[in-house]
Parts: sequence; structure tokens; C-alpha cells
Amino acid sequence: MAAPAAEEERPRAGRGAPGVEQRAGRGGGDLSRAEPRRALPGVPRPERRASSGDRCGLSPVRAAMTETTRYSGGGFVHIKNPHLEAMDEDVLYHLDLGTKTHDLPAMFGDVKVTAGPQPGVCRPCARPAVLPSLLAVPRPCVLIPDSGRSAAGARSAPVQPGCAGSAAVPGAAPRRHIPLRADPVPADPVPAVTDTSAFYTQFVCVGGSPNRMRAFAQFVHKELGLEGDGEDLADICAGTDRYAMYRVGPVLSISHGMGIPSVSIMLHELIKLLHHAKCRDVTIIRIGTSGGLGVQAGSVVITDRAVDACFQPRFEQVVLGDVVVRGTDLDGGLVEELLACSKDIPDFPTLVGHTMCTYDFYEGQGRLDGALCSFSNERKLEYLQRAHDAGVRNIEMESTAFAALCGLCGLRAAVVCVTLLDRLQGDQIRASHAVLQEYQQRPQRLVAAYIRSRLGLGAAAGNTRPDRH
Amino acid sequence: MAAPAAEEERPRAGRGAPGVEQRAGRGGGDLSRAEPRRALPGVPRPERRASSGDRCGLSPVRAAMTETTRYSGGGFVHIKNPHLEAMDEDVLYHLDLGTKTHDLPAMFGDVKVTAGPQPGVCRPCARPAVLPSLLAVPRPCVLIPDSGRSAAGARSAPVQPGCAGSAAVPGAAPRRHIPLRADPVPADPVPAVTDTSAFYTQFVCVGGSPNRMRAFAQFVHKELGLEGDGEDLADICAGTDRYAMYRVGPVLSISHGMGIPSVSIMLHELIKLLHHAKCRDVTIIRIGTSGGLGVQAGSVVITDRAVDACFQPRFEQVVLGDVVVRGTDLDGGLVEELLACSKDIPDFPTLVGHTMCTYDFYEGQGRLDGALCSFSNERKLEYLQRAHDAGVRNIEMESTAFAALCGLCGLRAAVVCVTLLDRLQGDQIRASHAVLQEYQQRPQRLVAAYIRSRLGLGAAAGNTRPDRH
Repeated sequence: MAAPAAEEERPRAGRGAPGVEQRAGRGGGDLSRAEPRRALPGVPRPERRASSGDRCGLSPVRAAMTETTRYSGGGFVHIKNPHLEAMDEDVLYHLDLGTKTHDLPAMFGDVKVTAGPQPGVCRPCARPAVLPSLLAVPRPCVLIPDSGRSAAGARSAPVQPGCAGSAAVPGAAPRRHIPLRADPVPADPVPAVTDTSAFYTQFVCVGGSPNRMRAFAQFVHKELGLEGDGEDLADICAGTDRYAMYRVGPVLSISHGMGIPSVSIMLHELIKLLHHAKCRDVTIIRIGTSGGLGVQAGSVVITDRAVDACFQPRFEQVVLGDVVVRGTDLDGGLVEELLACSKDIPDFPTLVGHTMCTYDFYEGQGRLDGALCSFSNERKLEYLQRAHDAGVRNIEMESTAFAALCGLCGLRAAVVCVTLLDRLQGDQIRASHAVLQEYQQRPQRLVAAYIRSRLGLGAAAGNTRPDRH
Repeated sequence: MAAPAAEEERPRAGRGAPGVEQRAGRGGGDLSRAEPRRALPGVPRPERRASSGDRCGLSPVRAAMTETTRYSGGGFVHIKNPHLEAMDEDVLYHLDLGTKTHDLPAMFGDVKVTAGPQPGVCRPCARPAVLPSLLAVPRPCVLIPDSGRSAAGARSAPVQPGCAGSAAVPGAAPRRHIPLRADPVPADPVPAVTDTSAFYTQFVCVGGSPNRMRAFAQFVHKELGLEGDGEDLADICAGTDRYAMYRVGPVLSISHGMGIPSVSIMLHELIKLLHHAKCRDVTIIRIGTSGGLGVQAGSVVITDRAVDACFQPRFEQVVLGDVVVRGTDLDGGLVEELLACSKDIPDFPTLVGHTMCTYDFYEGQGRLDGALCSFSNERKLEYLQRAHDAGVRNIEMESTAFAALCGLCGLRAAVVCVTLLDRLQGDQIRASHAVLQEYQQRPQRLVAAYIRSRLGLGAAAGNTRPDRH
């Protein structure tokens, strides 16, 4: 097996003076182009980490690499790994899924149906009758004829004998299926489901807490007008407790735990999943919690630039003892779209700013209340003020790795976090459970509004809230 | 508030040529001494990370700090934070506990009873009648008169009116309480519970998966001969899904998620919890899973030295933009005790070796099967072989931070991980669920045997296994 060519180190530079008014990203969010990432004027070139190479006994030539190219092509999710295609099986260990044990294209990707209803195929939803491991998730779906139509107006349709959905959930009520993107909308939805991408994963939303991501899936279920209350959503990763995953129509909702290592494992396996499933044009949004910097508690921050603890837009990772430096671009167009959606939800403040990502919640974020603390309040405030001056408006623990991995693999990515407190005012999160719960619903409401907007379901209701969890 | 004195950078050195036969640690595991950590001959001095200081615009003088002193004193858990004592409340946010909302000494610490049964005190267990948030966990306990006595031979005792345990769990059967360490064993356990440290947390076991740590708590419940099957154990952190925590007599079992950031958050809050509860002489053991290096899948590795991805015994952390370097010593005496216990469990191999800790599961551990991979199989194997030559026998994602934090705070710490595969043979974890489940029980069995041994309950049964989860 040939070795991939080593990346060439190239300088990276920034976009001028940092500030919350500036928007990062790639313009219109087109991820399909193949051109190398533009040089970013103003950000200093990352220095060579020769010491790491020396430290590991490796050649200093390999000690620092800056990855500057992105994969692209046709909107598909791309992996950057020449070894993967040679594998006869891919076990996604931490998701408890795999290419031999699960039909990933059927579960998550496009399902092309070239003829009308077939024996063993559910007429309303046109799914194959056998959908391993997803049996408890999909129930017979019904296309509704127009995107703006309310759930109450949708028609139900008979279910074929042998339909996997009805067999899996005896007596279950039919579920509605909203038209997706470019799906042709048939005049009579029942017989006309032919040559159509009836199902695919179009949006992936990720967040730290499994309970929160389940609540989000239930909220989206309601926001998309699907039948039922979504209480019976099954965890697709039920075989493991590392992560939880729920699917609601075109939306996947997945937990990622806390911190860069945890989100990285999930993203590697999610990206491979989307690749195996042949998903296209996927938008991925992290909906999380954070500490604010100089903003009112409860504010929602849409990240224009993910920066590290030194306020630089980079993600450093040790690979075979070498330090690899990756960019953390996010999609500027997506930032604009999300900000536009926020205008319809006036009952909490939403802003755009830089997000600082750290490896530690206590010392790493300058907190005085950890088990260890070796600095004064004055030094803490000086550091946080410098972060604020650099344009940082909130602090969390996943965004740089999230931006780097998603960017390299052709996913249109955004980070939307609520601030639980203002770190310039204190360290401890002391708001009541009820207040914190309501805060945590805010990114969910914004992102659900965005998904509704993308699906042509109209503006955000603005008055519905996810259930508590 | 005065700033704590900055740590002085000092050289650190190793213990000669690395190898699995060599044992790290502090000799007999006495953590109460105040002397600075010994210089370790042979390990190169960590270089100054001047570039980090430059990068952040900070003074290079502060750019690298090596912490070389440990707190100590009287066996208590120590925090290294002068600010904490001034706080009127400490909210342990990610554990959903706090000093004002929970009686932490009653829940986790020593309970001194200076007189016989009191109104509002449970006679059998001598606990105060009001134990906030732990009501569902402890039920009336009965001291059994000797450590070797079987559960079947233990006597039950009447419960005082108003006992919190019986009120919380109506009709619940009394639970037995084994004698702990230096507890005087009364002739008649019911009236004689006076002036005794009846309850405290003596062992803390941590691992990534909440389900596994629940299974471990249930297994310990059985191994300690407590009444019932332990199925009704309540999650003390039930108010959050970030971590799960179970208490079984003197043992706390807590999940920590995946990766250094996640385990660090848990440890900061756990250490503060133990400090607030005035716990003493706490032994903490991580029981986890890992990839092996040149060892048979299913082997259990007791870590003598936690090393980073460059095979060095250090934990680097960014604090206010500075890189702080900490040692990763583990307790040599505890390694020996655990290894001795393993002799009684002959049905799986146990060995002592170095453990490499990485920030990433895929590229960071040299895997060829991630979404990204930029190196060849040959370079991967060269890296892993160098790790093996340096004494590394397994790879996981928490041990350096775990060793550094526990060491600084006076916890006697060990890492015991099973290997799920041999990384010199492949990357994917393809063993069946049943095999993996049995593998994951092995560290649990070893550590339960150690706890039994420490409590004077005799050697490991060797023939019992935790329930599957």
C-alpha cells in the first residue's frame, strides 16, 4: 500500500484584526470546490514545533505540518484516507455500527427507488422491507404534497403487507414524511414514489449531552410536523453508551461527550458513516453550552472563528509523534443564514463572535474554582480580557477539532452555543436548573428554525420550546 | 487575594532505561510525606516550550513550568487552590452536587457518632436521618461482626422510627455493612455503633462508560457480600447525564467519559468532593479499556508509568496561555499490590507496563482506519514499534491527566486496563460483543479482588464475574 504524500508546510495568515463583526468562513458555503484554502492575511504563521520532533526522536523536518488542502467533489462527504477503500469491513466501534452488520445507505443515505411499490416494500415510504437495526426507528411514512402544509392536513396511506415498519411496531400510527430539498412532489404521493431520493441525512446536529440530543430530536420531530410526540424515538447506538444517536426524517441528532478527544472519535466514525451511506450536501451543526465573555448569560453565540487557548484559529494534533496543525474555518454563509433565522426568535440575544476552545474546563479556562489553581484573580481577568479583546465571546471544549475535521471532510459546519454565565463576572454556574434548562433550549430553537427554513417549512415558530430533559 | 507563588521549573529525570519489568511509583505508596518528588535519573529534562509563550504573546519566562511538588498531610485529600476556602458555596456542576445543596461529609466522608442511637438516627447504620440526595442509595445497614463472615450469616437489626433509609425506600430489606479498615467491631452491632467512622469513601474506581461503572458497582456489591443483588443502585449524579456515580459501602464507582478533558472535569469535581467530605487515605483506580502493544488481546495491563504520545512521563496543559508540564507518577506500591492480587485470578494474563495516553483514537494512535489518515502502514508500525521498545504495552486516552491530577492531590492512584486487541496486528476492534464484554470484566475482577483484600475479606474468589451490561 503506497504511503500518501506528506503534506507540505505552508504559511497561514488571518483575516485582519479580530472582532465579532468580522465573519469567518468560506463565503457562500460552497464546499464542492477543489481550490486550496486561501491564505488568511494577518494571522501569524504558526511556528515550527521543532521541539516536538526532537522530543520524540523524529526528524525535525516532519515535526510540524500545516494541512492546507480540502477534499471536495459533488457534495459527497469525503474521507481523506487512502486505506479505507481497501478494507472489506469497517467497524464503527464507538457507534456500534458497521458496514457488514448494518445497511448504512439504507439507514442514512439516499434510497433510490426505480419502480413503484414492490412486494416487501412499504408503499407509503418506499423503503425496503428489511432495514437492519433501524426497524424500531422508521415507521411507515406518508409524503405530504406541499412543504407548507400542516401535519393535520396530511393524508395517510395504506401499508403494504410485510412492511418492515409496521412489522416492527405493531399497530403503530403512520408517520408523515416531509418533502426533502429537490424531491419531486407527486400529485398522489402513494403510487408516485418512483425514482426519488426519499430518504437521506441532510442535517446532523451534535452536542455533548445524550439527554439533550434526545430532547432535540423530539423537538425537531415536533417542529417538522411529524405525527406523534416523538417519545418513542429509538437510540440508533443503543448497543453502546459512548454516544447516543437519533434520527428524525432528514435530521440526525448525536451526542459527543465532553472535550476534543470525545468529539473527535464521534466525528471520525460519523464521517465514515456518512461516506459509506453516500450522503450528500450534509450540514452539521454543534449545539452546545459555553461560558460567555462579556455577554449576557443566556446569549446564543454563532461561531465565526474557532480559536485555541492562544486565540489562534488552529487545531494542533500529535500524529505519530509529529505535531500537525490544521485550520479551523467554519462556513461563513451558514453563519449568516443562522443569524438571519435568529431574527425570528426575539426572546433571547443572538450574536456572532469567536469561540475559544480549551482542553480543560477549570485551569484551562482560567477558573479559580478547580481542585488546582495556581494563579490570581487578577491574572485570570487579564487573560480573559485579552481573549475578549481578540474577539472571543464564548469558551467551550470542542469547536476547533469540530471545525478542523468537518472542514477537511467537506461538511458545511457551524457551532451554535448558549452561554451559561459571563466569565468576566465569575466562574461557578449557579443559575437554577430551570433557568439552565431554558438556556440550553435556545440553540435548539435556533437550529430547528434554520432546518425548517431550509426545508421550506416557513420561518421559526419562535414560540415552541423543546421539552425539558 | 494574594497570588500563589509561581512554580519553580525543575528538571525531572527518569528511572533508567524503560521496560515493562521496571516499576514506577513512590515506593510504599505513602502519600502523607511532604518531601518534594525525587529526581528520576535517566529521563531527559523537559525542554522549555518557549514557542508557546511567544505564540500567545506571553513572557517566555512563564511559558513553561514544571510542577514538582506534591501536597500532603494526614492522608486527607488535598486541593491545591488557595481560592477555594474563600468560597461560601462550591457547585460541582458536572456532578450535580454542591456544598450547600448536599451534605457531602454525610454522603461520602467520615460520620463520627459519639453516642448511641439518637432520635432521628438509624440504629443499625448510625446515619443521620436526613441525608439529602442520597436517600435512595443507603438503606439501613447492619454491621456484621467479622470480616470473613458470609452474607448469609449476617444479622439484621431493627430500624429506628424516622430512619431516612427506610422512609426513602418503603419496605426495603436491611442492607449489611462490612467492617471497614480500622473500625472497631462491636460484639453486638446494633447498640455498639459509637465513636466509629462507620462510613467513608475509601476506594474510588473510575472508567469511561457509565454502564460499565454501574455494572462494576453491582459486582462490588456482590463481592463485598452485601445483601440483595445491587440492581436498585441509584445514580448519585442522576440530575445530570455528564457522569454517573454509584456508591457501594466504601467504594465509589464513577464514569468519566472519553479523553483527557472529560476525565479532568470529573477529577477536579471528585477531588473537591472528597476534600469537602473530609475523606482520608483514598485509593483511586481507573479501570478501562485500551489497545495493546505486543500483548495478547484480553491481557490486563497495570500501568507503572503513564506516558504521552512521545513516550515521556508528562502531562502538558495550557493554563492562561502558558504550557504547564506535570509529572505522571503512579503509586509503585499499589502496582505491586494489584499484581499480587492478579496471581489469584489465573484465567487471564496480567502484566505491568507503560501506558501511552493520546488525545485522539484514530490518527493520534496511529490507526489507518479513521476518516483521516496521512501515513503509511509502514510508518504506523515504525511508530508503534518504537513505543513498544520504550516499554509501552497499551494505549488509552486518560492516564497522564489522571496520574497528574491524582498525584498532585494526594490520591493513591493506579490504572488497570484490559487490551481489546493487539495494535501491532491491526486497528479495528472486531471481537464479538460477548468476547469484548468478558474482556471488560477483567479489570473489574482484579480491582474487586484488591478491594476485598484491603478490607480483609480474603483473596479473590476468582470465579465470579460481573454481570454483562
